[in-house]
Amino acid sequence: MSHPVYIDQSAAVLLKNFFAEKTYSNLIVLVDENTNKYCYPLVSPFLPIHTLIRIRSGEEKKHLQTCIQIWQKMTDKQLDRKTLFVNLGGGVIGDMGGFCAATYKRGIDFLQIPTTLLSQVDASVGGKLGVDFEGFKNHIGVFKDPIAVLIATDFLQTLPEVEIRSGFAEIIKHCLIADVQMWDVIRKKDLADQEWQQLVPHSVAIKKNIVLQDPTEKGWRKVLNFGHTVGHAVETYFLSKPKSKLLHGEAIAIGMICEAYISFRRKLINEETLMQIEEFIFSIYGRVKITDTDIEAIAPLAMHDKKNAGGKIQCVLLEKIGQPIIDQIITLKDIKQSLSYYQ
Amino acid sequence: MSHPVYIDQSAAVLLKNFFAEKTYSNLIVLVDENTNKYCYPLVSPFLPIHTLIRIRSGEEKKHLQTCIQIWQKMTDKQLDRKTLFVNLGGGVIGDMGGFCAATYKRGIDFLQIPTTLLSQVDASVGGKLGVDFEGFKNHIGVFKDPIAVLIATDFLQTLPEVEIRSGFAEIIKHCLIADVQMWDVIRKKDLADQEWQQLVPHSVAIKKNIVLQDPTEKGWRKVLNFGHTVGHAVETYFLSKPKSKLLHGEAIAIGMICEAYISFRRKLINEETLMQIEEFIFSIYGRVKITDTDIEAIAPLAMHDKKNAGGKIQCVLLEKIGQPIIDQIITLKDIKQSLSYYQ
Repeated sequence: MSHPVYIDQSAAVLLKNFFAEKTYSNLIVLVDENTNKYCYPLVSPFLPIHTLIRIRSGEEKKHLQTCIQIWQKMTDKQLDRKTLFVNLGGGVIGDMGGFCAATYKRGIDFLQIPTTLLSQVDASVGGKLGVDFEGFKNHIGVFKDPIAVLIATDFLQTLPEVEIRSGFAEIIKHCLIADVQMWDVIRKKDLADQEWQQLVPHSVAIKKNIVLQDPTEKGWRKVLNFGHTVGHAVETYFLSKPKSKLLHGEAIAIGMICEAYISFRRKLINEETLMQIEEFIFSIYGRVKITDTDIEAIAPLAMHDKKNAGGKIQCVLLEKIGQPIIDQIITLKDIKQSLSYYQ
Repeated sequence: MSHPVYIDQSAAVLLKNFFAEKTYSNLIVLVDENTNKYCYPLVSPFLPIHTLIRIRSGEEKKHLQTCIQIWQKMTDKQLDRKTLFVNLGGGVIGDMGGFCAATYKRGIDFLQIPTTLLSQVDASVGGKLGVDFEGFKNHIGVFKDPIAVLIATDFLQTLPEVEIRSGFAEIIKHCLIADVQMWDVIRKKDLADQEWQQLVPHSVAIKKNIVLQDPTEKGWRKVLNFGHTVGHAVETYFLSKPKSKLLHGEAIAIGMICEAYISFRRKLINEETLMQIEEFIFSIYGRVKITDTDIEAIAPLAMHDKKNAGGKIQCVLLEKIGQPIIDQIITLKDIKQSLSYYQ
């Protein structure tokens, strides 16, 4: 992981600097209807001549059929290998557009311009690309680094509060696994009072540092999955229930409470720490209604987590705030208990 | 490119050595109806417990729809990331199975066991994976190395002569671009008298050496495309005419004559060299019937070659036997002239 991440308030500045140094034969810009409306106007004056590809927003469009549409447009345009593929959007655009670029003619350069808080602090670093398959998140994909990531914090002003709240879950996670001091800063403030100009670079730095040590997730990088073993299962489950939709960060918030609870049950963290974590997360995210029937359906979904091996569910637990441990084997029963506790 | 390539007469020896050192949670073996019948019996006694996935043989099945079937079976089996994916077959199996493995949960280990002469000397080295898309060969794919390549020359006895002839084209190519001495050895013998036990390791060594210098084909690796600019266009064209099917090597044989002719027209090689090349190739492959109408349709297909940049057709030409030059810009007219010459 050695691609540069440039952070600035202004997308204009970032783009001018990037294109001052790079030349491509063609440019593709991938947007959805939201980033087309709110973000594209902020970047288009600073892009060389390009072709816009517009897809529908949403995790439910993150599948191979959408990739096929994108590859078809690229093929129709006879784009060569010196084409740059620009992803302007949140995690769905970045993951799926990155995957399309990484596989078109066995790979062309792509540039990530994350526009949501979540993708700025999470999806933009780490080279994880892919699409959902048969209901499983990011089931088909590759690891590949973008040519660069441009993080313009002015995009955050275009976001509704629910999107900010979703992205904040990854910031909370980065503090819980790596920085108890910053945890003590954020937990004393409401969502509206958080300082994004400081928190975005802080979270990116934590993630970069971890990924750099273990680019293909064979070991320590797994700490980034804190909250995700249970959280992904919750997210997958609610994906199949369109009426009660949960954003990624909202699901991870649930997962962090559950996995903190499992850590407590195993006498890794004490009750005071568990309380501190759950009180703060509940204060930001509220309590999502999960029934006993839901729990029975959610738990088995964790079996499909990519981090598992040999049929066992592997999870990241906390020994202390800022001190995670990886490869902890947990059972379906642990997951069910933790979701009951969450209720 | 640092994966090991093991060559032996016996598949049994190769497999025993491999599995003496490696442990996996699951094993998938991909075959087609031919390798299932002729090759699988030679390897199955030496494989740990595994799941067999059988697909239909042929380039016309090398597309995303087949990948989706393979990914579905893997998902149904709940295979984790510690699974080994074994490709037992020719280039189609290796390229497509490798692509499925390289993208399943962002990549699991895969083992190439090439069973055709062509895949033993060509597809097994170089990490090029992918499937055809909208009629374009290997249009969607990635570069990724297998965990190892096991080349058992006893599989060659299972092949019909037409398959041996097809694979021999890549051996001819390797001699033309890198070894004039071996060229002088092979051109004095009929197909039936070639010594595969010597030629297979020789070709693999040439290819490995070139790929090692330039794994992602930014420069010198392009020499391996000698014969392929015109040859791929010919192959793509005949793919759309199922009645007059050409194997890959047969198309590349045509491409080598055409590109040698273009080299001659540009005063790079002399007439004697051109004659030597075309006489030998015609003696092995005969002359395929290509009409003027065919030529008009074939030439534009070369525009889509992945090696092109900025709308120009880039080609490898020969200065001498054993001495290729890359990045030579050729025109549609050059291609048409060379195909007319071939006629």
